[in-house]
Amino acid sequence: MQGTSQETAVQDIRFGGDYNPEQWPEEIWLEDVRLMREAGVNLVSLGVFNWGIIEPAPGEYDWSGLDAIVELLHANGIGVNMGTPTSSPPAWLRKAHPEIRLVDAEGRTLAGGSRHGVCPSSPAYAEACASIVDKIAERYGRHPAVKLWHIHNEYGWANVECYCEASAAAFQGWLAEKYGDVDRLNDAWGTAFWGLVYRSFDQVEAPAAAPPGVNPALQLDWKRFSNDEHVRNYRMQREVIARHSEAPATTNFMIPNCEGMDYRRWAGTVDVVSNNHYLIAERPDHQIELSMSADLTRAVANGPWMVMEHSTSAVNWQPRNIAKTPGELRRNSLAHVARGADGLMFFQWRASRAGAEKFHSAMLPHGGTDTEVWRDVAALGNDLKKLSSVVGADVAADVAVLWDWESWWALELEWRPSVDLKYRERVEAYYAALWREHVTVDFAHPEADLSGYRLVVAPSSYVLTDAASKNLRGYVENGGHLVVSYFSGIVDEHDTDRKSTR
Amino acid sequence: MQGTSQETAVQDIRFGGDYNPEQWPEEIWLEDVRLMREAGVNLVSLGVFNWGIIEPAPGEYDWSGLDAIVELLHANGIGVNMGTPTSSPPAWLRKAHPEIRLVDAEGRTLAGGSRHGVCPSSPAYAEACASIVDKIAERYGRHPAVKLWHIHNEYGWANVECYCEASAAAFQGWLAEKYGDVDRLNDAWGTAFWGLVYRSFDQVEAPAAAPPGVNPALQLDWKRFSNDEHVRNYRMQREVIARHSEAPATTNFMIPNCEGMDYRRWAGTVDVVSNNHYLIAERPDHQIELSMSADLTRAVANGPWMVMEHSTSAVNWQPRNIAKTPGELRRNSLAHVARGADGLMFFQWRASRAGAEKFHSAMLPHGGTDTEVWRDVAALGNDLKKLSSVVGADVAADVAVLWDWESWWALELEWRPSVDLKYRERVEAYYAALWREHVTVDFAHPEADLSGYRLVVAPSSYVLTDAASKNLRGYVENGGHLVVSYFSGIVDEHDTDRKSTR
Amino acid sequence: MQGTSQETAVQDIRFGGDYNPEQWPEEIWLEDVRLMREAGVNLVSLGVFNWGIIEPAPGEYDWSGLDAIVELLHANGIGVNMGTPTSSPPAWLRKAHPEIRLVDAEGRTLAGGSRHGVCPSSPAYAEACASIVDKIAERYGRHPAVKLWHIHNEYGWANVECYCEASAAAFQGWLAEKYGDVDRLNDAWGTAFWGLVYRSFDQVEAPAAAPPGVNPALQLDWKRFSNDEHVRNYRMQREVIARHSEAPATTNFMIPNCEGMDYRRWAGTVDVVSNNHYLIAERPDHQIELSMSADLTRAVANGPWMVMEHSTSAVNWQPRNIAKTPGELRRNSLAHVARGADGLMFFQWRASRAGAEKFHSAMLPHGGTDTEVWRDVAALGNDLKKLSSVVGADVAADVAVLWDWESWWALELEWRPSVDLKYRERVEAYYAALWREHVTVDFAHPEADLSGYRLVVAPSSYVLTDAASKNLRGYVENGGHLVVSYFSGIVDEHDTDRKSTR
Repeated sequence: MQGTSQETAVQDIRFGGDYNPEQWPEEIWLEDVRLMREAGVNLVSLGVFNWGIIEPAPGEYDWSGLDAIVELLHANGIGVNMGTPTSSPPAWLRKAHPEIRLVDAEGRTLAGGSRHGVCPSSPAYAEACASIVDKIAERYGRHPAVKLWHIHNEYGWANVECYCEASAAAFQGWLAEKYGDVDRLNDAWGTAFWGLVYRSFDQVEAPAAAPPGVNPALQLDWKRFSNDEHVRNYRMQREVIARHSEAPATTNFMIPNCEGMDYRRWAGTVDVVSNNHYLIAERPDHQIELSMSADLTRAVANGPWMVMEHSTSAVNWQPRNIAKTPGELRRNSLAHVARGADGLMFFQWRASRAGAEKFHSAMLPHGGTDTEVWRDVAALGNDLKKLSSVVGADVAADVAVLWDWESWWALELEWRPSVDLKYRERVEAYYAALWREHVTVDFAHPEADLSGYRLVVAPSSYVLTDAASKNLRGYVENGGHLVVSYFSGIVDEHDTDRKSTR
Repeated sequence: MQGTSQETAVQDIRFGGDYNPEQWPEEIWLEDVRLMREAGVNLVSLGVFNWGIIEPAPGEYDWSGLDAIVELLHANGIGVNMGTPTSSPPAWLRKAHPEIRLVDAEGRTLAGGSRHGVCPSSPAYAEACASIVDKIAERYGRHPAVKLWHIHNEYGWANVECYCEASAAAFQGWLAEKYGDVDRLNDAWGTAFWGLVYRSFDQVEAPAAAPPGVNPALQLDWKRFSNDEHVRNYRMQREVIARHSEAPATTNFMIPNCEGMDYRRWAGTVDVVSNNHYLIAERPDHQIELSMSADLTRAVANGPWMVMEHSTSAVNWQPRNIAKTPGELRRNSLAHVARGADGLMFFQWRASRAGAEKFHSAMLPHGGTDTEVWRDVAALGNDLKKLSSVVGADVAADVAVLWDWESWWALELEWRPSVDLKYRERVEAYYAALWREHVTVDFAHPEADLSGYRLVVAPSSYVLTDAASKNLRGYVENGGHLVVSYFSGIVDEHDTDRKSTR
Repeated sequence: MQGTSQETAVQDIRFGGDYNPEQWPEEIWLEDVRLMREAGVNLVSLGVFNWGIIEPAPGEYDWSGLDAIVELLHANGIGVNMGTPTSSPPAWLRKAHPEIRLVDAEGRTLAGGSRHGVCPSSPAYAEACASIVDKIAERYGRHPAVKLWHIHNEYGWANVECYCEASAAAFQGWLAEKYGDVDRLNDAWGTAFWGLVYRSFDQVEAPAAAPPGVNPALQLDWKRFSNDEHVRNYRMQREVIARHSEAPATTNFMIPNCEGMDYRRWAGTVDVVSNNHYLIAERPDHQIELSMSADLTRAVANGPWMVMEHSTSAVNWQPRNIAKTPGELRRNSLAHVARGADGLMFFQWRASRAGAEKFHSAMLPHGGTDTEVWRDVAALGNDLKKLSSVVGADVAADVAVLWDWESWWALELEWRPSVDLKYRERVEAYYAALWREHVTVDFAHPEADLSGYRLVVAPSSYVLTDAASKNLRGYVENGGHLVVSYFSGIVDEHDTDRKSTR
C-alpha cells in the first residue's frame, strides 16, 4: 500500500481557479495565497489573459509580476496551471497587423476591446502566438510549480469561424488536401444540383452571408475546417511547449455548449481533458444538463477528466444571472466528481473589480470572506481532500446515448423538414428520461464499439456514415437493443440522402 | 369543328416537371423516361441550372449529357421546355468577375454556394448570359422537341435589389431616362421636404441602409427600377433566342409571393404566362391563397396560363414543411385548372439525392414508385388527358378585386399610420369572404376597364393615379358598385398626398 | 407695474411651429400667414432643413424664398426662430465628400435620401456647416424678425455614434485630452482584466461590432465622446452666429427619449432650453411620461424652458400612430406649461404633401380648417394669451428623483445581472407612483444640492461617483429622507465595483 499513499498525494482532486492578480496590489496577493491555503486550493490557472502585460510591446517582456506570483504560489505549495494568453492578443498586435481581425459571416471586421476577435487562420497571429508561447515555456517550462499547461482559452469562443480572405484561402487548401481532385469534391458535395460545379479549389467561396440554400455539404466541410483551424493552433502551441517542458497540457473545452467545436476531432490532442461548464440558471432542472455535460465530457476523455471552469454562484453573461441556491455549489461540484471529474476549478479566484466580468461570481466574492459563497467554497475544498480515493475511478454504464457533432451540425442547417427539429432537444429528452430513472449513461459515437451496452439510444442521428450504419446493424444483430428516434439515418457525412444512393 | 380535334391534339394540358438528370447515371435516365410515360408526362423543363455543367470553363462547352437527354425525351414523345441557366451562374464566372456578386441593402457582398446571388445590372453578368443563351439557342433552337423556352428561373428570387456601384449607376440612368430633367424628379419626389433636392441625377443614392425616413418616392422608383432590371435581362435573352428559334418563351413568375416583382410591368414580355406557386402549408385554409394566386395569375396573363412549378407534397424551405393530405395534390392541381391553368408542372421530377432541395417533394419521391405520392402523380397525369377540352376555356367572373403592386409596395413603406396596415391582409380578407360565398373573382388593375363587373372591391388601394381615380369614378357613375376599404386613394404614384395636391 | 406690462408683452407664451413653405406656391404662403394670425401664432421655426434649397451648389446661394418668407412673417408680426439646416446636408455635399457619410456599429456606410446620416466628427462636414451658418447668420443675424436661433435639429437623431476612421481618430484625441497619459486610462478602465492594456492612445479602437464583453469603461467613454462631438458642432455654430447676431440660441433636445445624448453635458451651451417631446401613443397612461419629460427638461434647464416640438395629434414614426383623443392636445400642452414651459411649438405648421412625414399631424392638417385639429389649435393659441402671467414662474417641489444619463448608459451595457434591469423602468415606476399621488417632483443629479427636498428617491442609481456618494450621505446625515432602490451605488464612473476599491 506504499504506492497508494504516494499516488494519493499527487492525485488529490485538483481544486482552485483562474487567478488574475494583475488587478490588485501585492498586499492583496499575500491575502489571496493565505486564503487559498485556508480553502484547500492546490492549483491555480495563471496568465490566461496576460499577453498585453507580459509583452507590453513587440519583443519587450516584463516577467516581474508573473515571476513573483509563481514563486509565491510555489512557496505555499500551490501548483500552477500555466496559461498561454493567446485568446486575448494585445492591442499592439491588432494595430500592427489589422489583418488578424476576425471577419464574421456578415462581412463585419470585428473591433477590439474584448477577447478572441481574431482570425484563427491568420499567419501573423500564428507567428505571434508561437513567439509568446515559446518565451513563456522557455521561462517556466521546468519550474517545479508548473503542473499543467493551459493552452489558449476556450478555443472557438466567439470566433469559431472567420470569413476573411486568409480564411477562404486556408479553406481551399484544406479542401485540396481532403479531396485531392476537385471532381471528388463535386461528387461528394452533389454540386450537379443547381450547377454548383467547381473546376478548381480556388473557385470555392467561404459560406458567408449568401442567398438561402447554400450547398449543405459545403457548409459541413466549412464547419469541419473551422474546427480544425483551432486544432491546428493548439497543436502548434503544444509542440512549442514540448520543446521546453514535460508537464502535461490541456485546453478548456466547452462541452456541450460550443456547437462549433467538434471535440471528437480534438480527441488525442490533450493530455488531460478539461471542461468549462456553466449551467443555464434560468432553465428548470438545470442540473440534468450539467450531468449530461459531465457524461459527454467523460465520453470525449474516454476516462477521467477535470472541470476547468464552473462558477460558485451566478455568472454574468446569461440573460438572467441567477445565484445558486443553498447547497447547489456542493451538489453541482460533486455531480461532476461522480461522473468522472478529478478536478474542480472555478472561474475565478477573486471577483474582478473592473472589466466585463466583474458580476461573475468567484471563490472569493466582492463581499469577502464573511459570505456564504466563501464559506461554501472553503468547506468544499477541505472536504474534497477526503475524496482523493475516487480519483481515477471508472464510471460504469449499461446504456449509451449516441452523440455526434456532425449530426448536430447537419440537422440544423437551413431547409430541413421543420424548424422544430433540434438535435439537442432530442438528445436531452432521452437523457432526461433516463436521468429521472436513475440510469447511468455513457455517450458514444455512432461508430464506437457498443457491444458492452444493454441499450443504445439514437436520438435524431441524422447523419450516419456507412461505417456507423454497419456498426448499429451489427449491434442489433448481436442482440443489442437499439432505440432509434425519428429523423435518424437520413444522410451520409456529405448530407446526401442515404436512400437515393443505394 | 375540324380545327378543334387538331387543336386538342396540341393542346393537352401540359404535365411534367423540372428534370435535373445530371445527378444520376444514365441507367436512371432510362427508368425516368419510362416512368414519365407511365405518368402521362408530356413536357419537362431541362437545363434550368446547368450552366456550370454545359460551360465548365469560359468558352468550353460540353453538350454530351444535354444532347442525350433531349434525344431520349424526343424519342419518347416528351416535349422539352428548354431552360436558360442564368439564375445559377458558374463558380468560374464569380471568380473571374467578382464584381457580379450581389451587394445587399446592408452592404454585404453575397457569397456563392447557392443560386441567384448576382447583380442584375452587372455588365459582365449580362454579357455572359447573352453568350451562353446564344449557344443554347443555336444548338437547340430548331430541335422539334423544344416546345417552349424557360428563360432564367424565378427572376427576383433572393436578388430583387442590388446596391453595388453598377446598380446605383444604372438607377441614375433609369431616372434620367424617366424624368429627363432633374427638376422634374425633384417635383415628383417632393424633395423640398427635408431639403433633399438633387442638382444632377448622379447625386441620387441607392436606398441602402440609411437613417429612417428615406424619401418614399425615391423608394418607389427604386423598386420600379429594380424590377425593370430583371425585365431588361429577360428581354435581352428573349431577343437572343428569337434569332435561333420560333418556339414561344416564358419565365416562371412567382405570383403573388414575390413582392419585389411587379408582374404588371412584365405583361407582354412572355408568350405564355407561367407561374410558380407554393402554398404556405402551415396556414389554415391555405387553399384560399392558392385560388387567389391562380386568379391573379390569370389577370396578369389576361387569359390562359400555366403552372410552371408547384409541389406534389411538402417543400423544403418553409419553417414547417408539412406533407399534403390525401387528395390534396389532386384538389390543388384541379383548382389551378379551374381558374385557367392549362399546364401543371412540378418542381421536380425526381427528388434530389443531394444539395439544398433534397427534402423538396417530387413526382418521383426518394421512396420510389411504391408510394402514395407516385400513385397520385400517375393518376393525375392520366386523368388530365380527359380534360383537354378545357384548355383555352375562359373563366367568367362578375366581381373584380383591385390589385396593384404599387399599392402593395407603397402601403408597406416605413412611417405609415400603423404597422398593422398590410396590403395583402386587406386583399385576402375580401378575397376569402368572396371565396367562401363561392363567388368567382377576377383581379383587375385600378386603371383597367371595369365595366363588365357587377361589383368591384378596392382593398386598401393606397396608391391611385389620376387615371385610376377617374376610372373608378366613371365606373360608379355608370352604375357600378364599388366597395372601398380604409386607406384607399391616399396618394398618387409618387406617394404624394392626393388631398394636398388639388 | 410699468415694467411688468412691457415684460408681459415680450413674454407671451411662444406659440407656433416648424414652417417649411418650400413645398407650396406663394399663394399658399399668404393663406398660411393669415391662418397663423387667426390661431395666435407668434413664432415660427424657419429653414430647419433648407440647406439644399438655399445653397443649391457649393458656394451658390438662393435666398429668394427665405427672404420673402421672413419679410412676410415680419410684416405680420410673427417672430422667426431661424434654423441652421445642418442636420440635412445637401446631396451635393455627400457626393463631393463621401467620407462624411455615417458608418454605423455594423460597419455599414449609411445611404442618403433621409436626414442626419453624417459623421459628427467629419472635418469636411464641419467646414461646410461653418460656411453655411456663417452665410445665414450674416444675412439674417440683425433682422428684427429673428427672435431666436434654432441650431441644427435634434442632435443625435439616428447619428449619435459614428464608427468611421475619422471618428476613431477623434476618439483617440478625446481620450488623450481626458487622460493625458495612457496608463491613467489603463488604470481607470481596469484594462489589466483580459490583458486589454494599451501602450498608446492610437491603439484604442472604436467599439464597433465586436465579440461580447467589450470593456465597459471603454464603452462609457465612447458614449461620452459621441455626445461631446455633437456638443462640439453646436458650439462651433453658436460661435459663428455670435459674430453676426445678438439673438439667443437653442437647439431642440429630445428629453428623455434620446438615450445617447447626456443633456447634462449640454447644460450651459444653450441660451434657452427647448425640447421635443412626442409621447408614445400606444402606451397606457402616456401622459405620465409626458409629465416626466417636462419635469426632467426643467431640471436640465434649471428654470423655464420651451417645447420646441410636439404634435397636434398622431405622429408618423411610431408602430401605431394613434390620434389624440378630444381635449388631449389642450391637456398635454397645458401640462407642459404647468411644469415650466413658456413656449408651445409644434412640428409642424402645415401638413406636408409629400416626403417621409406627410402622415405626421400638423397645426393645419391635410383636411384644412374645417377640422377638429384646426379648431383645437386655434383655440389653444388664443387662450394661451391669457396665460402670459405664468411665464417665468417657478415650479416648487418637495421631492427629488435622481436622474443621471451615466447610470442609464452603464446600467444597460451588456453582461449585467439581468436583462430585466432597466434604468427607465425603475425611474418611471417611482415617478408614476408619485404622480398618481399628486406629488410634484423635481429631477436632480446625484451630485446636486438636495438640501431643499423633504424626500429624495434614487432609482437604480447604478453609477455613483465618490462625490455623489458623499453628497447622498451628507443629505441623509442632515436629516434628509433617501429612498434607494436595488442596484444603486454599485460602480463608479468607470464601471468599477465600488466595494472592491476601498
